Amino acid sequence: MPRQVYDMTIQLSWPHPDIRADLAALRRQVPLTHCLTNIVASGFTANVLLAIGASPAMVIAKQEVAEFAAMAAGVLINVGTVTSATARAMERAAAAAADAATPWVLDPVAVGALAWRRRIVTGLLAHRPTVIRGNASEILTLAGAEGSGKGVDSTASSTASLHAARALASRTGAVVAVSGATDYISDGTEVIEVTGGDPMMTRVTGTGCALGAVIAAFLGAGCPPLRAATAASAVFAHAGERAIAQARGPGSFAAAFLDELSLIGTEPT
Amino acid sequence: MPRQVYDMTIQLSWPHPDIRADLAALRRQVPLTHCLTNIVASGFTANVLLAIGASPAMVIAKQEVAEFAAMAAGVLINVGTVTSATARAMERAAAAAADAATPWVLDPVAVGALAWRRRIVTGLLAHRPTVIRGNASEILTLAGAEGSGKGVDSTASSTASLHAARALASRTGAVVAVSGATDYISDGTEVIEVTGGDPMMTRVTGTGCALGAVIAAFLGAGCPPLRAATAASAVFAHAGERAIAQARGPGSFAAAFLDELSLIGTEPT
Amino acid sequence: MPRQVYDMTIQLSWPHPDIRADLAALRRQVPLTHCLTNIVASGFTANVLLAIGASPAMVIAKQEVAEFAAMAAGVLINVGTVTSATARAMERAAAAAADAATPWVLDPVAVGALAWRRRIVTGLLAHRPTVIRGNASEILTLAGAEGSGKGVDSTASSTASLHAARALASRTGAVVAVSGATDYISDGTEVIEVTGGDPMMTRVTGTGCALGAVIAAFLGAGCPPLRAATAASAVFAHAGERAIAQARGPGSFAAAFLDELSLIGTEPT
Repeated sequence: MPRQVYDMTIQLSWPHPDIRADLAALRRQVPLTHCLTNIVASGFTANVLLAIGASPAMVIAKQEVAEFAAMAAGVLINVGTVTSATARAMERAAAAAADAATPWVLDPVAVGALAWRRRIVTGLLAHRPTVIRGNASEILTLAGAEGSGKGVDSTASSTASLHAARALASRTGAVVAVSGATDYISDGTEVIEVTGGDPMMTRVTGTGCALGAVIAAFLGAGCPPLRAATAASAVFAHAGERAIAQARGPGSFAAAFLDELSLIGTEPT
Repeated sequence: MPRQVYDMTIQLSWPHPDIRADLAALRRQVPLTHCLTNIVASGFTANVLLAIGASPAMVIAKQEVAEFAAMAAGVLINVGTVTSATARAMERAAAAAADAATPWVLDPVAVGALAWRRRIVTGLLAHRPTVIRGNASEILTLAGAEGSGKGVDSTASSTASLHAARALASRTGAVVAVSGATDYISDGTEVIEVTGGDPMMTRVTGTGCALGAVIAAFLGAGCPPLRAATAASAVFAHAGERAIAQARGPGSFAAAFLDELSLIGTEPT
Repeated sequence: MPRQVYDMTIQLSWPHPDIRADLAALRRQVPLTHCLTNIVASGFTANVLLAIGASPAMVIAKQEVAEFAAMAAGVLINVGTVTSATARAMERAAAAAADAATPWVLDPVAVGALAWRRRIVTGLLAHRPTVIRGNASEILTLAGAEGSGKGVDSTASSTASLHAARALASRTGAVVAVSGATDYISDGTEVIEVTGGDPMMTRVTGTGCALGAVIAAFLGAGCPPLRAATAASAVFAHAGERAIAQARGPGSFAAAFLDELSLIGTEPT
């Protein structure tokens, strides 16, 4: 049970008993997870949610998102391929989630690189996301540091953004999850470190986007935010480690990753 | 040859000789299958159509869909991620298909859950779909029963909706296909039951959506509606059974399912 | 080293040392490849770019594409599922790429079949694409010959379009790449022939679309246009040959193809 406290961080990973319990709860509840996400990651995100045991639903029309976000257990808003039309839908979904107290996750893809989506993301932050998940560049940008985003990939190390994550969490009230070789998750006070995973996860498109959706699913299953983001990160890291053993490259890895997400936690302890 | 008549239903499944013949005809003709479908299932749907031997084409602009639906062999309209823009395109495609006597399939995803798309689906029904494919909740909703749709997954058993299917078929003139652990297909008089498949099919996103596309492909190859829906369901069920034998989880299952769709019927009898 | 000159064509394929060198350069530079592509192929295209060693980014809002195309190393514009909204974004991206001297690839999907997109493609041609990639029907249409496009698949042989390719290249100044059983690539004077690959590549959706993206990535890594298109085609053909040895059908083939794209060129020579 690799619980270690050093400096101000707590390291958590699979198979911590709390995380096992949260995953079992998710599978019992099959949380309806409403995703407004990008066109690249939609299919993979839905498959990841199905593999882990949640119920994905991608409803994106501005006429429908408020009604649906209110009935969902958790909501993901990912601005990867945002347009004028989807920006309006995201705004409504975020407002409805906040009104209905539906927990929701914001994934500010490439917010450091482009001014237009910076304004959209700022508007969404006003609806107080439950969790913000991004790479180091994205979190640095939102925290007010100078973004260094080269497209959608991070060019800052996740370690460098640990302080930004804590600051952003303090300022927004959201739990902030920074994805990288090591994931950092903070509520502004505590910092949890999740290690593991495999670099191959960066060679499969939508892995980070799908992580945001899985955080929304854990929130939808009733996990508190810090715990939801931690459980999602730890399950992803462990599934990645298990999948790499069966993979020749990113194609076979993606299939094995979905297989492992469905199998993880079903073994006798 | 598992043809059994009991009560009012006929059970059909692979390798019924009519279904084998219909699949062979589809492969000879490579029907151009025009799909207006959701952003989640688009890629998988195209891959399923290619695997089985059809020619997929996703053309979605409102300026193009009427022209294209008229030249296609079969059309699928799936409202999963419908928006204002795509709703207009779907309306035009349905009208053009009806005018050109191109057979078309309506997949009323989540129609039970959301009022806005209920109006869109009602508008589409006026253009007389050749086949309506949905899960039990969706068919119950369209038949006028109280929908019980939780998001996009069905919460009613397909058995419970058998009567709704027959009623909806009688009222609309469409063949109605209800997907579930057992599939029911009715033209308002006859009911065909397709058993088999595997629960893993519900863990791969877009399987139901792709089934609608394959029905459109069988229609495009000249199959009468009741037979097209039956052939598609039976081929899917059998491919699912063959795929599960090679799968560790949903990732390897999805790849094996595409493999089996391409191999099914190519073996010597 | 299969370099053969016959008639006016040069045959190039993996492992030509120039192509190996270009692939190594691509992997060192990880070119940011901006894709405006169709909803069917988006996920697979991103995975192909990641597998080969490039950095994909799908940014599609009309408010963002000009800024992003100017900072990208290479741009792909694929009109497969173009709509009014994305047509405007494509126009802006092409103009910005031309202004910034960012090399860009045009993929005129199904241009032979539909009049509306013919006008859009004509507008894009005014911004002088660096490379035009298409199947034989699409290239014949753009060259002014009578198109014979049935949907998105080609009904003309790529051999038949060799002359059209050279003519279109001469007229537009673009390098033209015609995909088929044999690929032909011309700058209006020279013609390069790339053989190999496997028919299974036509059973996986988005393979041709992803090839356009990989050409953009090679351009982004600094390859001259004729060489970029040749390298991309040769790497694809070889990866396809390696993948088929491990595949039972199109599902396992797609995964193996991504694996091989990531492995090709990493072996000791």
